[in-house]
Order: sequence, then C-alpha cells, then structure tokens
Amino acid sequence: MNEKVVNAALLGLGTVGTGVYKVIKSQEQEMTAKLGCQVKITKILVRNLEKASGKVDDPSVLTTDWADIEGDPSIDIVIELIGGIEPARTYILAALKAGKNVVTANKDLIAVHGKEILETARAAQKDFLFEAAVAGGIPIISPLKNSLEANHVTEVMGIVNGTTNFILTKMSQEGMEFSDALALATELGYAEADPTADIEGIDAGRKVAILASVAFNSRVTLDNVHIEGITKITAKDIRYAKEMGCEIKLLGVARCQEDGVEAYVCPMLIPAEHPLASVNDSYNAVFVHGDAVGDTMFYGRGAGELPTASAVAGDVFEVVRNMKADCCGRVGCTCYKTLPVKNMADTHNRYFLRLQVEDRCGVLAEILEHFAKYQASVAQIMQKESKRPDTAEVVVITKLVSEGAFFKVKEELENSASVRKISSMIRVYQK
Amino acid sequence: MNEKVVNAALLGLGTVGTGVYKVIKSQEQEMTAKLGCQVKITKILVRNLEKASGKVDDPSVLTTDWADIEGDPSIDIVIELIGGIEPARTYILAALKAGKNVVTANKDLIAVHGKEILETARAAQKDFLFEAAVAGGIPIISPLKNSLEANHVTEVMGIVNGTTNFILTKMSQEGMEFSDALALATELGYAEADPTADIEGIDAGRKVAILASVAFNSRVTLDNVHIEGITKITAKDIRYAKEMGCEIKLLGVARCQEDGVEAYVCPMLIPAEHPLASVNDSYNAVFVHGDAVGDTMFYGRGAGELPTASAVAGDVFEVVRNMKADCCGRVGCTCYKTLPVKNMADTHNRYFLRLQVEDRCGVLAEILEHFAKYQASVAQIMQKESKRPDTAEVVVITKLVSEGAFFKVKEELENSASVRKISSMIRVYQK
Repeated sequence: MNEKVVNAALLGLGTVGTGVYKVIKSQEQEMTAKLGCQVKITKILVRNLEKASGKVDDPSVLTTDWADIEGDPSIDIVIELIGGIEPARTYILAALKAGKNVVTANKDLIAVHGKEILETARAAQKDFLFEAAVAGGIPIISPLKNSLEANHVTEVMGIVNGTTNFILTKMSQEGMEFSDALALATELGYAEADPTADIEGIDAGRKVAILASVAFNSRVTLDNVHIEGITKITAKDIRYAKEMGCEIKLLGVARCQEDGVEAYVCPMLIPAEHPLASVNDSYNAVFVHGDAVGDTMFYGRGAGELPTASAVAGDVFEVVRNMKADCCGRVGCTCYKTLPVKNMADTHNRYFLRLQVEDRCGVLAEILEHFAKYQASVAQIMQKESKRPDTAEVVVITKLVSEGAFFKVKEELENSASVRKISSMIRVYQK
Repeated sequence: MNEKVVNAALLGLGTVGTGVYKVIKSQEQEMTAKLGCQVKITKILVRNLEKASGKVDDPSVLTTDWADIEGDPSIDIVIELIGGIEPARTYILAALKAGKNVVTANKDLIAVHGKEILETARAAQKDFLFEAAVAGGIPIISPLKNSLEANHVTEVMGIVNGTTNFILTKMSQEGMEFSDALALATELGYAEADPTADIEGIDAGRKVAILASVAFNSRVTLDNVHIEGITKITAKDIRYAKEMGCEIKLLGVARCQEDGVEAYVCPMLIPAEHPLASVNDSYNAVFVHGDAVGDTMFYGRGAGELPTASAVAGDVFEVVRNMKADCCGRVGCTCYKTLPVKNMADTHNRYFLRLQVEDRCGVLAEILEHFAKYQASVAQIMQKESKRPDTAEVVVITKLVSEGAFFKVKEELENSASVRKISSMIRVYQK
C-alpha cells in the first residue's frame, strides 16, 4: 500500500464518536511521520443530519445511509461506535465482507457475537480490533494478545465499570446510601438516565466475557458470566467491611482453573492493602496474573469521550500500520481452546454474611453449627451491643468454601427460627 | 513464511536467559495454535560450556563462538541477554545485518546506542524489540508505541528500579537506615554485589532515556538524563515526609513541555494518596499522561527471572507473527522529532529542605528572607522543639520554583552564618 491517505468512516457521532473525530484531527500534523500517511474521516453515519452538522468541520461527510459507506470502495476502515447489537452487527459483518477493516468499542456485541465477527474477519483477512470495548482508554486487550502472550494467564480481574466504582467510592468515603450516591452519579453525568446495565453489573459482565476470552484463549460469552449488581449494598455493609480491613468493590473476576473457567461479576470485599482497594471514583483497573509475569495491573480512565477515543484511535493507527505492511488480520481470533465454564455453585469463595438474630443465650452457638455442618469455617465474627431489645446483629466472614456448600448454610439459616433476617451476603475476594 | 519451526539463538544463559528458555519451553504445547509454528532455541551462546550444560535439556545447543550463530542462516531470531555495551552491540548489529530479527532486554545499550541499532534494523527491515528493557515484565514499550499512539504524551514517570524501591520501602515501613536496608536487599538478592548502578539511579536513568524517547518520539540518551541516587536519604527525611503527607520514592520523570524535554531521576516526595506512593517492595509502576487518555498506570514486577522473560518471550512471539505475515520491521524507530532536552536548572519543582540553624530569635525570619528574595514561596514549614542546646532543625517545603532560582536560595543558605548545615534537599513531585 503506497497511498498517502487512508479513508475511514465513522458510524455514530455520540460522545465517543465525537472524541474519535477530535483525536484523529489532533494527530493531523504528526500522522504522516508516525504512520507514513494521513487518516481521513470521509463519511460519518448519523441519525440526524441537522443535529450532527454542528459537530464537524465539513457537514458534507455526514450521511444517514449505511449503503453510502458499505458501497464506497475508497473507505478502508469502518469505526463502529453506535453500540448495541443491531444494526451494529449487520454493519460490521457487511463491512468485513466488503473488504474493510473494522474498529469498534462495542462490548455488547462482542460479548455475545464475538465468535461470528472474528471468524468473518479471519475469512476476509481483515483487522477487527476492539481495545476500547474493555476499560476504555486503558490498554488491556493488546497487552493480553501481544506483550503477555507467552504467559499462561490464570486470572484477570478488576474494576471495569466506572459508574459503580464512583457510587461505591462515595458510599465508602462519605457514608452515603446507594440511592443518594446513584442520584449524585446521575447528576454529575457518571450514570446514564437508565443506569440498569451499570448498577446491575451487566456492563461489567460483558467486559469479563471479553477479557476471559482473550486471556484464556477460550470463548466466554455474556450468558456464561454470573452477574450481580450493587443495588443491595448498604452504607452499613461498607462500614462493617472497613472494620474488618476491607473495601467493597464491584469486581469482575475471570479465572482459568484445572476444571474450567470461572467468570463472574459481583460486589466483593477486598483487603484494604490490595492495590484495587484504592482505585476510586470513576477509575478502572485490571489485574492480570500470568505464570511468568506474576501480578500486573493496568489502571486508568475506563470511560469518557477522550479516553475511549484514545483506544479507538490507537486501533485505527494499528490498522493503518497493518495496511502499510500488507498484513491486515495479523492478530485475529485467539480463542483456539474450548474450555468449560463452571457453574457459580462450583466456585470457591469466602463470604461476608450480616444477620439479624434473636438476642438470647445460645443463639450464636446454634448459628455457628449450621456453618460447621457444611465445613464453612469462620474467619472473622463480630457482634455489637444491640440497640434493639431482642435482636442482635452478627457479621460473619467465612474461610474458603464452595458456593454450593455455603448456600446450604444460608438456606438453613433462612429457615432457622432464631434468624430473623439475612441482611446481606457479599463475597470476599481471595486470590 | 510457511515453515513450521522458527529457530532462535539465545545470547547468554544467566538469570533472564534461563527464564526465557523456561518460558518458551512452557509454551511448547500451545505455540503452534497461538502462532502457527514452533519457536526452537537451537543455539545458546555461553562463556562456560560446563557451567551451562546443567541448565539445558540438550547441551549440544551450547556454543562459545558467536560466529556459530551469526553464520547460521537457519537462525531467524537472536535474543540478546548478555547485557552491557560490548560485545552486545557488535553482536546485535551483525545479527541485523545478517538478516536476523533481534529481541533484547539490554537497557544499557539502548539508552546509549538506540539510534544506531534502530537505524540498522530499519535498513535491514528487521524487527528490533526491547519490551523487557524497561520495567521488566510490565508491558509499557508496546502500549506506548501502539495502543496509546494516538495521544500526545506529555509525561511518563514512575518507579522503574526495584532494588531502590525495596530499600525505600524498608526505610519507610520499618524505619531502617539506608545502609541497613541496602544490606538486607543484598542478603535477599534484590541488590547486586556492586549495587552502584541501582542506588545511584543510573539503571533508572537508562529506563527514563528509553521511555522518554518512545513516549515523545524524540531521542533522549542516558547523558541527557539528570541523575541522583538515594544514598543520601535518611530515615529522618522519610519521617518528616510522612508528617507532611508524603512518601519518598526514587522517581524517573520525563516530561514533554513547550520548551523541550525534561528527563531526570531523583528521590522525590510524592503525596501519600498518589497511586505510586503505595507501590512497594520491588514492584515497579509507570504513569503515562496523554492528552486523550488522561492518566494511566502500568504496574508489576520490574525485574526477576520469569517476569523479564515474559516480556522477552512476548517480543519473540511478536517477531514470529511478523515473520508469518511477512511484515518484519513493521514498527521500528518512532523518533521522528528532534526536541531539545532542558537543563535541570531550567526545570520547575518543589523542594524539601532540612536545615540545622542557630536557635535564636529572628533566625527563621532571616532564613525565609533568602527564599523570598528568589520568589521561592513556602508551602509548608516545620520546626520542632530542639533537643540540642543552640541548634534547631527546620524543614521547609517550597511551592513551585525554577531549580536555578532555588539553588541560589540554597547557596545563600549555605553561606549564611545562621545556617549550620543543610542536611537534605529533596525534590517534591508535582504534576
């Protein structure tokens, strides 16, 4: 390829689309020195021409018709930023089949249809890159596929949703309740009008599916990931966690073990001295454990206009380099294994349980018998002087136990006449 | 390239060489699925055949003669791990000219002769990769050259020497003095028999030169980097730093400013809430600030057999992928600018100064006049009840001031009759 200009089309001109437009523009002067050519955005697919026209220098690049882009042979790179499953999936597959390279930030799509898209890219010998789909601006997909490739990665875990991390930070640092912290996040623009995908852990679940697939070389899809959100976490849980030396974070965890892959998202207690415990506000951080590299962590902004655009534009530059060297499709699908994904009941964790129990002599022993029955050893227990006449609050942290066994303990406790209520059950992260 | 085997030669079978041998061996079963072929180490250059023979499965791969490797056309990749300038430089240049790709962990060489080697690689259209040269196993060179490429990076800074970070951690956490902490580091194998390059900051300086070159696309060599070590830091300085809300770390700092590049290594106070302040023991961490991505951090093991081997083997796999796609030399030298490097006197910093002064009325005002004369505003000042009869200890932290101006203050203080001694001068990191 000797052209001095590579044409690209942008699908979508929302927050990230506008960011990519800006970042590519800001690189104009250096691009030729960097890549040997200029990247020009010659078409932008939008829904509303009028609304979009104020966002670009030359409104003639705007179109509302996908066929304008699909049928334009001068366009070599399609940058998909409309999000969601359809029509993004149709456009991406069509673009690849039309011989175009594709860059996307679309985690929803990859977490469900990654296989189909990567196979289409392979057949077309084109690049399909998606660094921005996980942890925004933080380089994590490329390090896993390249620099860390000589490792057997056994764990990828971290904070991969900025909205919930902001909420939990406010709850921890300022003692806010969940609903107040969510309201603040909405007011400040950290939470969307409908925050469900964030606070219920679905967004993080998509990222865990993608991270696990890349890290373990075996496809994990969204429906393989056990997902719990943070809506049930209370300021009181966080206070107890702190007294027990921990913070509560919404963690995405993927582990590759001998009997299969574990993949889940849930709020977890994590020791205060763990580097992730001090990742606050809307920052993200991903821990990777490999057999050679040991522990390594990648930290930064997991969302936002320019951080996400940084990752998208980095992928666009990568495509251009591959085009110049005539090696598009150089790193494609890396899922060459088929590992089973374990049921949550077969995972092993530690558990934090906050209980309201009858306040009478012998109750504690009675409760602990349920734990002992299923070999759920107690690591920490805490009971405070009760303010209510006949109810005591007891908090237990167990040692490592299978989730299946622990849920039997929990069920027995729920049915026990001495237990008035199980106020919370939160897992405790243990490496 | 359709061969099923790529042959590589290892130069050196010390700690890292042995690690690379192990890591490549551990990938044997998956390599063909990953890369489409096997990497085989068919020659290893060693000094002592007998000593080395116990470290490999098949001692017939060992040789003491470089010509055996240079002249072997079946070898496509040379992995240089002997370190130092010569004969490494000669071997690498010869390997590239003989049409072989080169992977190295040799920071000493790149920080001085990077330009010559990268130009030779470009002329030969071969890969010259050096992820392991900076921060061991942590992916940082590749993210800067690839994922973060669409940023104007304005700062790269961090903890890039594990030995000194171990020493400073012990001094901070256990109140040890420098000499005791160094003795412990030596005993535990964190410090070499001759620790000069580590404790005097030279090792970190090499890494700063390489990081600055890659991040700012402009060559910075070792002699451009202002270097100070940690030998003068005392447990008392660290105690004062803590009281003032800071930790002391040996930081490598590279900044790209309008009037040029700043590049230095020195012990610095850093606020306790900064993520680098809690990077302890022999861990490394590198902060990158880009105009799009904002702040991002890369954390992990900066040295050691397997972590460093992880980076080396990752580069070897990258070369193999490039060979398969026939695009070696795809990402070469990225220094397409020539930016001036500033003198240390022209940098701006904040300063921590610990002084022994005459203990009489009016001395403090007299001292502060020297600061005021050069517009060095005071941000914090601390004087404690003295135990000695006529000497008081005063600690000052300034606001941002040019190093040139501050050194005039320091010189005047040194010549002042009221100042008995300047016990320490340490810079304070300010973004």
